[in-house]
Amino acid sequence: MVEHRKPIPVSEAVQKVIDQAHLLETETVPLEQSYNRILAEPIVAGHPVPPFDRSPYDGFAIISKHSSGASGDNRIRFDIVDHIGAGAVSEKTLSGNQAVRIMTGAPLPENADAVVMFEQTVESDGFFTIRKPFKPLENVSLQGEDVEQGETVIESGNLIHPGIVALLATFGYATVRVAKHPVVGILSTGTELLDVSEPLVPGKIRNSNGPMIAAQLARMGIPCKTYGLSVDNLDESFDIVKRAAEETDCLITTGGVSVGDFDFLPAIYERLGANVLFNKVAMRPGSVTTVAVADGKYLFGLSGNPSACFTGFELFVRPALLKMMGAEKLYLPHTKAILFEDFDKANPFTRFIRAVYDGHNVKPAGFNKSNAVASIAKGNSLIVLPGGTRGFKKGDTVDVLLLGVEEGSAAWKL
Amino acid sequence: MVEHRKPIPVSEAVQKVIDQAHLLETETVPLEQSYNRILAEPIVAGHPVPPFDRSPYDGFAIISKHSSGASGDNRIRFDIVDHIGAGAVSEKTLSGNQAVRIMTGAPLPENADAVVMFEQTVESDGFFTIRKPFKPLENVSLQGEDVEQGETVIESGNLIHPGIVALLATFGYATVRVAKHPVVGILSTGTELLDVSEPLVPGKIRNSNGPMIAAQLARMGIPCKTYGLSVDNLDESFDIVKRAAEETDCLITTGGVSVGDFDFLPAIYERLGANVLFNKVAMRPGSVTTVAVADGKYLFGLSGNPSACFTGFELFVRPALLKMMGAEKLYLPHTKAILFEDFDKANPFTRFIRAVYDGHNVKPAGFNKSNAVASIAKGNSLIVLPGGTRGFKKGDTVDVLLLGVEEGSAAWKL
Repeated sequence: MVEHRKPIPVSEAVQKVIDQAHLLETETVPLEQSYNRILAEPIVAGHPVPPFDRSPYDGFAIISKHSSGASGDNRIRFDIVDHIGAGAVSEKTLSGNQAVRIMTGAPLPENADAVVMFEQTVESDGFFTIRKPFKPLENVSLQGEDVEQGETVIESGNLIHPGIVALLATFGYATVRVAKHPVVGILSTGTELLDVSEPLVPGKIRNSNGPMIAAQLARMGIPCKTYGLSVDNLDESFDIVKRAAEETDCLITTGGVSVGDFDFLPAIYERLGANVLFNKVAMRPGSVTTVAVADGKYLFGLSGNPSACFTGFELFVRPALLKMMGAEKLYLPHTKAILFEDFDKANPFTRFIRAVYDGHNVKPAGFNKSNAVASIAKGNSLIVLPGGTRGFKKGDTVDVLLLGVEEGSAAWKL
Repeated sequence: MVEHRKPIPVSEAVQKVIDQAHLLETETVPLEQSYNRILAEPIVAGHPVPPFDRSPYDGFAIISKHSSGASGDNRIRFDIVDHIGAGAVSEKTLSGNQAVRIMTGAPLPENADAVVMFEQTVESDGFFTIRKPFKPLENVSLQGEDVEQGETVIESGNLIHPGIVALLATFGYATVRVAKHPVVGILSTGTELLDVSEPLVPGKIRNSNGPMIAAQLARMGIPCKTYGLSVDNLDESFDIVKRAAEETDCLITTGGVSVGDFDFLPAIYERLGANVLFNKVAMRPGSVTTVAVADGKYLFGLSGNPSACFTGFELFVRPALLKMMGAEKLYLPHTKAILFEDFDKANPFTRFIRAVYDGHNVKPAGFNKSNAVASIAKGNSLIVLPGGTRGFKKGDTVDVLLLGVEEGSAAWKL
């Protein structure tokens, strides 16, 4: 009567999914639109940073050897022959006890090899004295000390965050090559679903999974096409799924993947001739999560239960989309934390619990059932409890996956 | 000769800044545009979740007391009188050993108080038998078990992330009230600055701070107005700053805040009649960070050194903007981590080091000077070493602030 499915471990399921990713094309975007995109070219230093020897302080550029022997009893005098700010280049070439008054960021004049800070001098009209000797290159930012010319500073496949934008700007990348976004579709299935704007009626609930997934995509900077709501009717649903799969790189459906009488996704995958990678994962929630591939397109069949749907997206959809964009860091960041309250349930399968992590402790975010929604809203992380374990106690160290972090981890650590 | 400024502790500086925030107005946005906005109304449950007693499994709804005494030797029979999926409501009222075939998410029929899962039955044509008794409410998702009607599930001031979008959708928030974005301007000062698209010339560097700050704002979902580049000329700069301050809620300048001969921001603040909150912070990099307020508008004078500028934004600008939007979680998330390499420098002031954090260990991201840019590109966090300490050793536990995390911490933990 009941179809028996063989559950596979989460790590194996994740690997099966990302193995199917095909690399998307790239495009060029203006630097100011590049935040949160995946870099599709390495950032190569077109020049050294700093591009010239420069002063890191406001002060006086001198020739260090002429400060030799300076002391409190033997103050040495330098004559000020020029005065430049950052952005200016002194036309003077220093000799002997000459100095140039120089501001932070300005290039050292010819022959200068040290900078005396203002507070290290006693200044008078046109000259100053110092009471200590300066070493060659003292208080100098050397050309190339931060980045050498020709160095690959950041590899392709990294997410462009503000620090990378700064680097791109430094090297004159007014435009930058990034991965195109995948075209992602969302179809929420289930006769029980109402649109968010509809009033509640007996037996029905509003569709929360569709908007939630759209927001999970928005967090990644990825737009989506919405295919609305589909009732539990095989032929109608097949037509929508077929069209959506044609129009997208990745179709995410919610609901209809279990073994109920109106769960039509398995039949639709079969009719599409899709390659079903798995239809049961040894995890709670979301054991019915099904992933298939048809004509190179991903078909993610997430559970209709909100917590299961949410977790399925973060564990499977997110790394797949990142892999398609050539990203190097596919996985949610992992850490360890101290469980802040007992969790008594046994864990026949790997359990993912919506949780609140504060940088040290972690505790379940609330009601923990696959159909719960409040705990998704309250959580910022997932506690991961291995399958085959009994309950955990307050004070135990547990694995935690962090949500809502810009860039993830290159390794799956569970 | 040199102006002496009194440094104030970082925590005091942060507090001084956020104390000046005035609350922005609110606006209503469609749910699908609400990601990353700050919620300006509490989310109140307009109905219980689940909205009705429902089945969490595919199976049969029964009256539990009629299963009393069932065992392997005494299988009890139930007759199937109806068949419903999620979204349907059975018109049957159960009595005696009647059962309704019911799918996950469907409401329990009248009088039913337990659900038998398919795998707990032997099914025949029109009936099934069970071998164990069921307790009242066994396998039932109770109305309101996740959220009770009227409950405030999420307070105003939280960031809208995907889990909150799911909750908003559940309760029919087709639109949601959020804080308006502050109007933020960016002005990069310094005669040495070239635009990103200009070729390098002697003594000059490209403006990396402006695009970087725009990306730091983009990460928060906040657009900005760019006031371009300003050379180190007092009158010209004054005019631009004055106009920009009039047109924005918050003007961020880079450069010009130190005590150099061409650092005109202090004079501009004075001419504007601005209230300078501080002009020296006991931190490295970024000790010259200056924050002023004029006519209720923030004037952030960040250092022109990229690392100092970056850090100044994250420590001061970010919480101020969040506070203006009524956010509850203003600060970068904090954790502790194991230092993965020696850091030998002394720390006269609190030191913020761009770093790579992997969930357990943390190490400096590279070259550590205030004018470095590569380490901003490589880092995902800031190591914080307290002022007044000597070097730290590999294996020491250190404070870490995490960058690029969607929602921060409600408390400043340093």
